[in-house]
Formats: sequence, C-alpha cells, structure tokens
Amino acid sequence: MQPIFSTLIVIDKALKQPVYLQIANRLMVLVKDGSLQAGYRLPSTRALAALLHIHRKTVILAYDELLAQGWFESRTGSGTFVAKRLPEILHQQLPGSAEGNAAPSQKAGFAFTPTPHLQRRVMQSAGKLHLDDGFPDVRLAPLEDLARAYRSQLLQGDPYIRLGYGDNIGSLRLRQVLADYLNETRCLKITYRNILITRGSIMGTYLACTAFLKHGDTVVTGTMGWGGGEMNFLQAGANVIKIAVDDYGIDVDELEQLCRKQTIRMVYVTSHHHYPTTVTLRADRRLQLLNLAKQFGFIIFEDDYDYDFHYLSKPLVPLASADQAGMVLYCGSFTKVISPAFRVGYLVCPEDVVTHLAQLRRIIDRQGDTMLENAMADLLQAGIIQRHLRKSLRLYRQRRDVFCQLMQQQLGNCTDIQIPDGGMAVWAKFDPAIDLEKLNEKALRQDLYLPPGKWIGAETGLNAMRLGFASSTPEELERCVGIMAKIIHS
Amino acid sequence: MQPIFSTLIVIDKALKQPVYLQIANRLMVLVKDGSLQAGYRLPSTRALAALLHIHRKTVILAYDELLAQGWFESRTGSGTFVAKRLPEILHQQLPGSAEGNAAPSQKAGFAFTPTPHLQRRVMQSAGKLHLDDGFPDVRLAPLEDLARAYRSQLLQGDPYIRLGYGDNIGSLRLRQVLADYLNETRCLKITYRNILITRGSIMGTYLACTAFLKHGDTVVTGTMGWGGGEMNFLQAGANVIKIAVDDYGIDVDELEQLCRKQTIRMVYVTSHHHYPTTVTLRADRRLQLLNLAKQFGFIIFEDDYDYDFHYLSKPLVPLASADQAGMVLYCGSFTKVISPAFRVGYLVCPEDVVTHLAQLRRIIDRQGDTMLENAMADLLQAGIIQRHLRKSLRLYRQRRDVFCQLMQQQLGNCTDIQIPDGGMAVWAKFDPAIDLEKLNEKALRQDLYLPPGKWIGAETGLNAMRLGFASSTPEELERCVGIMAKIIHS
Repeated sequence: MQPIFSTLIVIDKALKQPVYLQIANRLMVLVKDGSLQAGYRLPSTRALAALLHIHRKTVILAYDELLAQGWFESRTGSGTFVAKRLPEILHQQLPGSAEGNAAPSQKAGFAFTPTPHLQRRVMQSAGKLHLDDGFPDVRLAPLEDLARAYRSQLLQGDPYIRLGYGDNIGSLRLRQVLADYLNETRCLKITYRNILITRGSIMGTYLACTAFLKHGDTVVTGTMGWGGGEMNFLQAGANVIKIAVDDYGIDVDELEQLCRKQTIRMVYVTSHHHYPTTVTLRADRRLQLLNLAKQFGFIIFEDDYDYDFHYLSKPLVPLASADQAGMVLYCGSFTKVISPAFRVGYLVCPEDVVTHLAQLRRIIDRQGDTMLENAMADLLQAGIIQRHLRKSLRLYRQRRDVFCQLMQQQLGNCTDIQIPDGGMAVWAKFDPAIDLEKLNEKALRQDLYLPPGKWIGAETGLNAMRLGFASSTPEELERCVGIMAKIIHS
Repeated sequence: MQPIFSTLIVIDKALKQPVYLQIANRLMVLVKDGSLQAGYRLPSTRALAALLHIHRKTVILAYDELLAQGWFESRTGSGTFVAKRLPEILHQQLPGSAEGNAAPSQKAGFAFTPTPHLQRRVMQSAGKLHLDDGFPDVRLAPLEDLARAYRSQLLQGDPYIRLGYGDNIGSLRLRQVLADYLNETRCLKITYRNILITRGSIMGTYLACTAFLKHGDTVVTGTMGWGGGEMNFLQAGANVIKIAVDDYGIDVDELEQLCRKQTIRMVYVTSHHHYPTTVTLRADRRLQLLNLAKQFGFIIFEDDYDYDFHYLSKPLVPLASADQAGMVLYCGSFTKVISPAFRVGYLVCPEDVVTHLAQLRRIIDRQGDTMLENAMADLLQAGIIQRHLRKSLRLYRQRRDVFCQLMQQQLGNCTDIQIPDGGMAVWAKFDPAIDLEKLNEKALRQDLYLPPGKWIGAETGLNAMRLGFASSTPEELERCVGIMAKIIHS
C-alpha cells in the first residue's frame, strides 16, 4: 500500500531549516524506521510536490540530498527508489525491549536535531583491487620502524610521566621536530610555538571552524570541494558560498567580486592539489588571494594535505610561507604520508591562536596519543619519514604515468583525464553515456573497488570519478584498468 | 654592488640534500630577505658555477627550479632575473625570528572570542613522589601485552584494510567485546550497536553536549564537580545549576524542586564515585533520579569513570542498568583502567543516538585509533584487562588502607578524611590554619607533588585536597605522608 505521504511529511515553514531539508530528514526517518523499505519506489518529484503543495524544485533538492547520501538510488527511466544496499545501520533492528536501554530515543529524552549535512562513514568493503579516493600505499610505509618507535615510547622511561596526562597542545618533541621539518620543506619560518598537533586535517578544520566561525558567517570554498570541510562549515552554522575552480585552482577574481559585496570570514583552499580535481593554485592567484585576505580581513584556511606529493620539480611553497599579515591557518597531516589509520596532523598559526585552540581541544579529546606523536618525532628526526617520502614519490610518479597511459590506451575514447602534477589520484571525466553507478557495481563483482561517481554541487551532467593510483602497483593498475575497460567496452 | 655569491651560497656536500637544491633554497632565502631584489640580474650559470667550483649543470638545475617556482624569470637573450611579478611575496620582511609567523593575531583575521571558561592544561612537573588527583599506577598496567597486541594489529593482516579509513563509530571488535564485558560487569543489557567508541570520557561528554544541548538549555550538576564536564556545558552555551552533594551523592530532592520550577535538559552525575569528594550515589536516590528523568524528560549523563574500582563487596550497578525509559547516556573509559595516555572510552546509548553521535564524531577526528581499539579488544577478550583489574583492585585497597592509616596517625589532628568506598583518591579536609598553597610549594621542593587545593564553587572556607593514593606503593605513601607531616608540624 502506498504510504500516505501527505500525512507522513509535515512541513513547518516557520522553522529556520529549509523546507527541502525538512522533507529529506523526514524521508530519512521513514527509511530508518522501516516505513519505506529498501527498493521502495518513491513518488515522482512532480507527484510529491503536488501532494505537499510545494514547488517541485524543493522536492528535487530533497531527493538529491538523499541520493547523495546514499539513502536513495535512481534508475534511469524508472524513477527513484530507497537504496537496496543501505549502510549496515539501516538493516539493524530498531531499538526495542531486546536491546535493553536502547529504547526508541526520539520518544524519550534524547530528542536531537538531525544533521543531514553530516554523514557517518562506514568502512568501505574494499575489493582486492582498488582505485580509491587517493590513498597512500600503506605497504610502503615504514611500519616496522613505527612499531619499534611506538613500543619504545610505550615501555621506556618513567611510566608515570610517559603514560600520564600530557599537554593539550601536543607532544613538545614532535612540535619541535616538525617546526624544523616544515621550515625546511615548506619555506615556513616558525617555531614549535606556532604548532598545534591535531588528529589529522579534519580536527584542524573542526577546531578552526569552532573557534572562528559564528552562526551566519560566510565561508567561501571551491566547487567542487572536500566533504569534510563542507560538513564542518555547515555544522558551525556558516553560510557556504562556492566559487568556480578551473585548471589553475579557485577563481580569485570571482572571490574579489564577492568580497566587494559582502563580508567573508574564511576562505578554504587546498592550494595543492584541489580536491577532487587535483589542480594546483597558480602562483599569481596565490598572491592575489593573500592580498584579498589582507584587504578584506578574512582567514585563509590552507589545507595542504598532500604537499609532499608533487611530481614537477618542486611544489609551490604554501600560502602560509608568504603570509605576512597573519591571515593563513596552515593545516597538514600525516594521513597521506603514512596511513589514514594514524591520526596525527597539525595546524600552524600564531602563538595565541595555538593556545586558544588547545583550550578548545582540551574539552574534546583532552590530548593526542603522546606515544604515537613521539614515535612520529623519532621517525622524522631519524630521516625515516623523509626517506619514505622520497621512495613513495618516485614510485607514485611511476604509477601515475603507468595509470594515465593505461587509461589513455584502453579508455581514451570514453574518458578525459589530465595528468596530475601531484597527489595520488587522477580526475577522470567519463562519457555521459557510461553509467558510473553500474560500472562500480560490476567492478565490485570482479573485486575491483571504484569510488562513487557522485559529486554534490557539480556542474550539470558531470560524470566523473576521482581514481586513486598511488596505492596500487603497476601490475595491479593494469588489472584495474583492464577490468574497467572490459566492463565499459562489453 | 654585486653580492658576493661565493660567500652567500655555502654548499655542504655531506648533506643528503642534492647540491642544486641547496643552491636553490639558499637563493630563495636571499630573494626573500631582500638581498636579491626584484629585477636583479643573476650571474650567468657559467659564472656562478665557476665561482662555486661546481658543474654548470648543477647551477642550471637550481635556476630551473626557481624559474619553475616563479622566483626567477628569464628574458631571452639577456639572462635570468629575480621575478618582478611576485613583488609582494618576495619583498616582505621576514617574520620576527623568534615568533615565526606569530603576528599578533588579534590585529589580523584571527580575532576570536576568548573562552575564559576553558583552560589549557599543561603537563604537571610531577615530583618523584606524588599524591595526584587519583590516577592509576601505570607501573602495574599490562603494557607488554598491550605493546604486543598493538604491534600485531599494526603489522599483521591486509594492510590496506587494517590501516585505511575505519568506521567513525569505532572498532566493531572492541564494540562487540565491550558489550559483553559491560553486560557482565555492570548488568547492562546491550549489544555492540549501543556502543560508540570515544577518546575517553571527555569526548563522550563533548559529543553529548554538542548533540543535545542548545544555547540556554539547563544542565544540573553537583557542587563541587568535574571541571571537564563543566567546561563542556559552558562551551555548549548551557545554563549550569549546581545542587548540593552530601555523603550520599547529589541531593535528588533539591533536583525535584528544581524540575517543578523549570525545564532541565540534562543532569550530569558521577554515580560512583563523585568527583572530587568520592561519595557514592545511594540506591534510593538512584531510583528517584531515574523516576525524575522519566517524569520530567531530562537526559541523565552518567559518567561512571571509575566503576571498576570499588572496594566494598560489589559496586552498585549503574543507573543505566535500571533505565527502562531510555533516559541514560552511560559514559566510561579505560583511563583509570590502563593509563590516561591511551585515549579510549565509550558511550552507551540507543542505537540511533550512537549513529547521530558517530556522524558528529566524523567531522571532529574522523575515527579512533583502530589498532589501539583492536588491541584493547584483544586484551579484554583474553581476560588480561580483567586480571589486571583484579590485581590493581587488591593493591589499591591495600594502599587506600595504608594511606588512610598514615594520614590519621600523622595528620589526624589537622585533617579530616573519610575512608572512600572506591576510587583512587581520598578527599582530605585540612585545618583552615594550614595554607595549602604553601604546603604544595614546600612539598614540591622535597620532590613531592600535591594537587592544587583550589575548588571553584566550594562552600566558603573549604580547605581541602583530593589526594590520589593508587599510583604509589605503601613505601612511597609513607614517604609522602612523612613529608607532609614534617612540613605541617614544623
């Protein structure tokens, strides 16, 4: 029987929450509680809009939201359906008597405002082969060295001091060694007092957004951009404006026009290499951006997550290295250097900002993993990380070339790729006729994991994937492209 | 005047860095610090090579590097020049040598609202002896087992899966093992789906406050209470009301009166053992509290950070175990079990709340330390943590008795202590005539660390310290009390 949507979905126009989000949230709850089952065919956007007496565009926005989040799936020509492969959470039985204290929470004290802009990330069921989002090859990482250093941090020295509470700001040793390393590799001129150790770039982003964004502040970011950043801006209540990104990074002229019209609080930029398209911000745009920051007083949040992986001579030094006016928050991480599993990153900023952010950090997770931070310091000081970087850089460059060549040879007629100057992924545009969702499904059946080809806020008709080449050997890459080609050409 | 390049550029062939990069870096610094100005015509590669006694090709590589990076520009037929196009970057004065880019931030884009309710915590300069805030004796912890388990998590199995991105909700294995452990030890009735792994109690508190408190909501807590909780309530914009705590925990009658007057969103309670006074919430008050939660619809945040350390027969089971209405968020941690350095804790709550909090967690630090979480699961499953707990419980009980006896014998005339039923610290009230600040100072000079005797929100004239006994052996405790007695009685 057709659920009575006009009863199930109640819209309150007095709420601040946009109507399309109200609808999306409500539909999500209906899927969660089983009212709408996997595979259920939803009413057309036109029909639902008529039922709810709203504009069809609003329904389209709501559906798009749920499509992007993976709750819904669309099948060309036949409509929109509740996704069949819902994340694990959805198939779990809802809380009930069997679950002990897992009473249905919304009925009780736990009423919370759903945050549709946030999504839980469930571990990917990676195939044996993968062209991932751009991860490092952890098989190359100096894990033995790291394990040894960690062990010695854990077992040697005064245990009371070593294993007690530490400083919220991070390990002093890592801050010192890292300051030298960043000065050397990135032309910064900082001391350890300008460094806050974080749990990766995401915590750097979170702390900056929590400290500097007030509800209603405007954040400018490129389109398309990194979901982790955008979720943070939205969670902080910011108004997010997206500006164009071309082959040379974000369009700084567009930013300037914006600045003349309204107050911008923060500009989020991945100077090297823009996510997902991998482009590098050109030198003159960097200067212009710094000038605008000075002139209009906004913060530049420079997420330089893969600075270390650049294949053309040397990378452009970060914006932070030329920042004289104190406008740049520089954010980095060891995620791409070692592995995403080791949550160690850093923020570089003025000293009083470091202290302020450390205070915030204290109430979030108290402190980092002192043993791991000191072990990282050991590896940096011994040059082990640097050696690993040189080795990976060489291998990744080779893998990039192999991968691009394979793509051009076997899929050149239906894909458009540009050889990236750096990073671990290739931005590949596919012929619009190729259904990327089906491609993913078929590939997974042959044990090849491909990342989803869904890009929120992308230009219309964009049919593209970000294909990570760094984590596979040339032989593996050959098999990956072979599988893709066979599926596409069959 | 021609700069004396042979003096300005020093090459160290012993360095790992290639010579051409040494030259390029040095030239970059010279441009940055103004020694080489925009438009300056550089010596020819041949001339510089001769000056530096190196191969010309090396100089060409260095120049190419700087050309590629935009520092130099070449004009056909007339040579290589310091670029004119990047004057802003190139001629800025370098940041002060000591502060790096620590420009006074409040003048620039980084204006932030100071948060006087938050304080950074710097590592204590612990003396050789210590009566701390109530920390475990990390010398007893199964560190060898943990190091081994961590190492095997780090090095064994498919590295791509093991060291890739994990689930924001925490390690599935730890959640499973922990659910069994909590059901067994705390009479809960939960599955892994009710567990979110956190980075200790503080992250549990942070997530709950962020998810459930709106600006202006009222949180009730005991006076005195735990700073980590209070900082979180204030950061979330809550109105904090403190109710009395007597020998049997928070005054639930006072809470009831409050509830009749105003809406309470959350009650924060350490049922076992209240911080800092160590009292246990009496059974009848527990029931009354649960009833009030049901009646008035508030959340009980039960911080049960040291449930495992109770010396009287068996501890009272947590409020969460008797919660039928889904009003309790149960929070625990391994901080007191192993060491504060391992940031692993958990929240127990309804399944949809777990999902909601995991979404929030994703934008904060992405995920926990999967290796460490799995290593903890190994230790729990092998019964190593349980064995460690039995051993520490026995030793801590003995230490508590020794410590209380020593205090009564040597300081009985000027202190008032109650033997605690559990936990790792004794609440000691001192004679008002004793200046605790001076006592601390004098003790530290004799290598004994005592915690500060300052209690915010304490009743007037309270002169008390929370003295941790668990991390010292009986012999060490004897020396600690001896030092205190000597100072006080001298």
